[in-house]
Amino acid sequence: MPGKLNSITDVPGVEVGQTTLVEGEGKLIVGVGPVRTGVTAIFPLGKERANTRAPAAVFSFNGNGEMTGAEWVEESGFLEGPVVLTNTHSVGVVRDAVIEWGQKRFPGTENYSLPVVGETWDGELNDINGFHVKKEDVFSALDQAAGGPVPEGSTGGGTGVRAFGFKAGTGTASRVVTIGQQTYTLGVLVQANFARRDNLVVAGVPVGKEISDLQPVIHKESEKEGSILIVVATDAPLLPHQLKRIAKHAALGVARTGGVSTNSSGDLFIAFSTAAPAPAGIREQWTTLTNDALDPLFAATPQATEEAIINSLVAAKTVSGINNNTFYALPHDRLREILGKYNRLQRN
Amino acid sequence: MPGKLNSITDVPGVEVGQTTLVEGEGKLIVGVGPVRTGVTAIFPLGKERANTRAPAAVFSFNGNGEMTGAEWVEESGFLEGPVVLTNTHSVGVVRDAVIEWGQKRFPGTENYSLPVVGETWDGELNDINGFHVKKEDVFSALDQAAGGPVPEGSTGGGTGVRAFGFKAGTGTASRVVTIGQQTYTLGVLVQANFARRDNLVVAGVPVGKEISDLQPVIHKESEKEGSILIVVATDAPLLPHQLKRIAKHAALGVARTGGVSTNSSGDLFIAFSTAAPAPAGIREQWTTLTNDALDPLFAATPQATEEAIINSLVAAKTVSGINNNTFYALPHDRLREILGKYNRLQRN
Amino acid sequence: MPGKLNSITDVPGVEVGQTTLVEGEGKLIVGVGPVRTGVTAIFPLGKERANTRAPAAVFSFNGNGEMTGAEWVEESGFLEGPVVLTNTHSVGVVRDAVIEWGQKRFPGTENYSLPVVGETWDGELNDINGFHVKKEDVFSALDQAAGGPVPEGSTGGGTGVRAFGFKAGTGTASRVVTIGQQTYTLGVLVQANFARRDNLVVAGVPVGKEISDLQPVIHKESEKEGSILIVVATDAPLLPHQLKRIAKHAALGVARTGGVSTNSSGDLFIAFSTAAPAPAGIREQWTTLTNDALDPLFAATPQATEEAIINSLVAAKTVSGINNNTFYALPHDRLREILGKYNRLQRN
Amino acid sequence: MPGKLNSITDVPGVEVGQTTLVEGEGKLIVGVGPVRTGVTAIFPLGKERANTRAPAAVFSFNGNGEMTGAEWVEESGFLEGPVVLTNTHSVGVVRDAVIEWGQKRFPGTENYSLPVVGETWDGELNDINGFHVKKEDVFSALDQAAGGPVPEGSTGGGTGVRAFGFKAGTGTASRVVTIGQQTYTLGVLVQANFARRDNLVVAGVPVGKEISDLQPVIHKESEKEGSILIVVATDAPLLPHQLKRIAKHAALGVARTGGVSTNSSGDLFIAFSTAAPAPAGIREQWTTLTNDALDPLFAATPQATEEAIINSLVAAKTVSGINNNTFYALPHDRLREILGKYNRLQRN
Repeated sequence: MPGKLNSITDVPGVEVGQTTLVEGEGKLIVGVGPVRTGVTAIFPLGKERANTRAPAAVFSFNGNGEMTGAEWVEESGFLEGPVVLTNTHSVGVVRDAVIEWGQKRFPGTENYSLPVVGETWDGELNDINGFHVKKEDVFSALDQAAGGPVPEGSTGGGTGVRAFGFKAGTGTASRVVTIGQQTYTLGVLVQANFARRDNLVVAGVPVGKEISDLQPVIHKESEKEGSILIVVATDAPLLPHQLKRIAKHAALGVARTGGVSTNSSGDLFIAFSTAAPAPAGIREQWTTLTNDALDPLFAATPQATEEAIINSLVAAKTVSGINNNTFYALPHDRLREILGKYNRLQRN
Repeated sequence: MPGKLNSITDVPGVEVGQTTLVEGEGKLIVGVGPVRTGVTAIFPLGKERANTRAPAAVFSFNGNGEMTGAEWVEESGFLEGPVVLTNTHSVGVVRDAVIEWGQKRFPGTENYSLPVVGETWDGELNDINGFHVKKEDVFSALDQAAGGPVPEGSTGGGTGVRAFGFKAGTGTASRVVTIGQQTYTLGVLVQANFARRDNLVVAGVPVGKEISDLQPVIHKESEKEGSILIVVATDAPLLPHQLKRIAKHAALGVARTGGVSTNSSGDLFIAFSTAAPAPAGIREQWTTLTNDALDPLFAATPQATEEAIINSLVAAKTVSGINNNTFYALPHDRLREILGKYNRLQRN
Repeated sequence: MPGKLNSITDVPGVEVGQTTLVEGEGKLIVGVGPVRTGVTAIFPLGKERANTRAPAAVFSFNGNGEMTGAEWVEESGFLEGPVVLTNTHSVGVVRDAVIEWGQKRFPGTENYSLPVVGETWDGELNDINGFHVKKEDVFSALDQAAGGPVPEGSTGGGTGVRAFGFKAGTGTASRVVTIGQQTYTLGVLVQANFARRDNLVVAGVPVGKEISDLQPVIHKESEKEGSILIVVATDAPLLPHQLKRIAKHAALGVARTGGVSTNSSGDLFIAFSTAAPAPAGIREQWTTLTNDALDPLFAATPQATEEAIINSLVAAKTVSGINNNTFYALPHDRLREILGKYNRLQRN
Repeated sequence: MPGKLNSITDVPGVEVGQTTLVEGEGKLIVGVGPVRTGVTAIFPLGKERANTRAPAAVFSFNGNGEMTGAEWVEESGFLEGPVVLTNTHSVGVVRDAVIEWGQKRFPGTENYSLPVVGETWDGELNDINGFHVKKEDVFSALDQAAGGPVPEGSTGGGTGVRAFGFKAGTGTASRVVTIGQQTYTLGVLVQANFARRDNLVVAGVPVGKEISDLQPVIHKESEKEGSILIVVATDAPLLPHQLKRIAKHAALGVARTGGVSTNSSGDLFIAFSTAAPAPAGIREQWTTLTNDALDPLFAATPQATEEAIINSLVAAKTVSGINNNTFYALPHDRLREILGKYNRLQRN
């Protein structure tokens, strides 16, 4: 069962802020545009508690991508500050800007020197070598972070990306699970920029093979195929090594959409828990779920991941960018029709 | 496109040998039976060349299982000797027997001290605490190894296992891919012992939810849910770190069958290439595929894995074991009917 | 500061049991002898509480060795049952015997299917292909486990091993550290079977280069150079990912003795905490040290490791084995003299 | 035996370029100074061949640090472009600048989107929150890269760093080894910013404990203790998984200097080979050393690492920075005297 908003923000405390940069049309002039890019920031415990560390883990299913800060998450078991997503060539400016923001918000903090910043390639629609993301754009995404609905599709770091030969971008979904007598929420946010048309599977149905038209208009061969970033949040109390298991399970959700993680795909996942341990001097107190109790979360992770990916497609409108390269929106009516053809309008 | 036999033995050189132990009926008497277990041995380059190392890598998607020898495969980049699969409580006897066999076949060899032996739990049908696998059973599987068709279902190490609440066991499949002008074969063998009924998806269709009867008869709660072992073989010339990428992709095949890798699942994968480097004194000569050329293999791996799992179900007959515990065969006619209901008899 | 016994058993709860097999002299007859081998068992919480899981982690510095059960320790974050050490070709029999022992001691347990068994090669002194370790030898080591002093040198799994061209074997040491107002003990047990003579460094002094005589008498070239197994125990309350950090630090202790981890070395380490979390239904309660508080343990680990290795040498007597192969004891008087020459009798 | 220059540039092809930023004195004014920082760039095959990929691997001994690009090195087995070292808060600007430089030098390249940039913390001497490294400083380091002697001590990325309570910085060393009939060079460059005074060991001698004066003058408690970055280069032809083994061995060199890798230490290592495979369409041809042949390189790695660290101390002069914080140079005369006291002036 999805949460109230079917969004990562269903996990209490999680806040998301996005900066969407859209400027110019037509021919690419490096440094001028057109610009189709942005920044997505996810705070585990909200921006007011952005100096509290959240238990976390990372997993690289296919490492043709960047996620700064990953070594320290792996080593320490904690995420310090937000997770921020942007385009491949803007990871640096975003990373340094998160440090600067952190130093201002939390003077003297030790938690903002190794920020987590991930990326996907948007160079088919965006003037990626123009380096259009500026530190103010990062501050803006961070400062705007809030709970509530997350705009999906061509928003934030997902502004200029595509998946399965359709326009895609930011997508989110959530699941509510019951473990013992307790209810927990697991939410996923993806920046989906991967896979070819004929890979696309929706609810088990080979949608990509059924829609052979509406192919992207690309005036120059793509340099990189793309990637998928997956952020998993939960309020279930988990230890870092358990969160690594959760992060791994996101790969199963990618598989359900037909993705096969090609060589050029940067498939990097991060999972965090909002149930931070209680500090007690040099000690921390944790109340965590046993390994035996994790199965509902293992099942929810691919479900929410699959749906977040599909949502990124469903939410996106057709977009043209540099050199009038164009990715079309997944047509809703035809999707519905194809699901019907395969008797999947009511999905089991 | 599958290979000629749709089997791991389509990869030239690969040989498989199995010992199937079936004895007794009815009430469990530990040390007496009933016995439903066995041994499966896979030689990358055939048993005559079983002292030649094959480039290899392992990947643990969920490590609730054993694969001895994995540390040395990871460190050295090579598989020495065969991969052998059995039940959880017989890994030890099998491991030591492989050493003994190797020392006899290849006196003075340095390649048989750290054998690769994996396991799944068959304690629902088999007297697993009776330790019925003996070293002679291992020798027998090794000595019988041959090319050609591989008996599937309740055979070898898969004799007593089940998946999706049906009888399962050993399954295999293969794919032929073209890279450049060259044709390569990738074959998969699984020992499938995982997942619950309602997980089962075939060709995107929720078959498990459609067949709610034919549930297993178990007179005592299962102690462990089970696992899936996946062995990927290819004649494509690959480096060890590339084979690790291949091994990882097997997880996507599990996902396509609906598996979600529960806490109790030991999902351990190994991939090897039969294109061993040419020795040249203290040097080795390799001709390998570039990373950019790997995508057809990345796509073939989940395809062959998915099909090998389904084949393990389709091949298995209904089996009763200890205490008359029974797992039913997946009914072929109903599978066909359900695929038809979802318009998937001709799969895209 | 070392603990009371300068032993892994200084960590409250830890119990060690050893079976030492010494039989025959002279010419090697495979299957007959001479026999110089054994089994060492370490219970984190004592053999009476051997069904309680201890938080744990493994680290492979150089994986030319076997440690069964490692994948499940890594995945679950727990050590189930004892850590057992033996020779390379007896890992299997030991592993299956631990399962059998566990099933008898704790009927119906789910904690004994994936035992942790490590090995080093003792084939220069022992008839390793004679497979002389029997399951009764394993039961004996397990049943004898106790606190108190641990016999070092040619004992247990270390009976037939050597290091730095001297006889070595089992060694142990401990350190007591203060963190906050609390005192914790960290103990190390090694099975030391590695490195060449000229590597040996004691207290920073090149002892190996100073003692060029007393070289081993080996009538056939060694087949494998050897390995070092390191078991780190502590009563400091740590999470699994923190124990992985501890395990890694053991490598620094190896370096201080001059070891360089050659290709043929299986350098596998496991660290566990005796501070198991309190079970609470589907939850567990942990009180753990913060990452910032770990430095005294990071410093103690290489110290205790270094000393345990040196202790394995100092305790061992000269031993002859198969074919009258002989490894000499490190001569105490010359060690003392050399330390004096380098002004290190009072070590800083 | 060291190479001709005892430097990483003894490895044929390797080029190093540094930008050293030193400006202002006295009180810290964030954004103004004082500035004590810089950039160090290492090209495996020289800057003219900076678009050819070099086989490579990374290893994190203690991940309290950043090395961007690490996931792709791990996945692909190659280093694309240079390795660049700087301060913690400038990783972002450096990373994006490397991309920009690569796009200009090699238009349309696919090799410059995931640059490798590492860092250590220099905030005790440098206005690290002033973000003084600009992209032009990066271009300058890249453009100046050359073979020949590498300025050590307070240079490049090591300008503002310290180790063992002394001024340290950039250090380098090399070893020439013979394998078969062939001679290979292995070179190490470190950016050393770690450990406390009493850790310091030189040639086995407890130098740090012997020099208790000349303690750093710090007017505010350090925020982070520091880190050590290690870059290992060799012309030995190695596969990526073999280079990972080399990278791991660098940890043994750290241990020999007395370092214990504290919680706040970012100990990230990268190893690459200049023997890139020969491209052949979709294939690559490699001639590599067997695993059995690697021991001389395993021994050389800790040797060169140890010496590079000591060289970073020996080369550095006393430096004052922000708020007149001061780190003193290791006094050469006293070092010599102490080595004599322990009879280590002629080191064995």
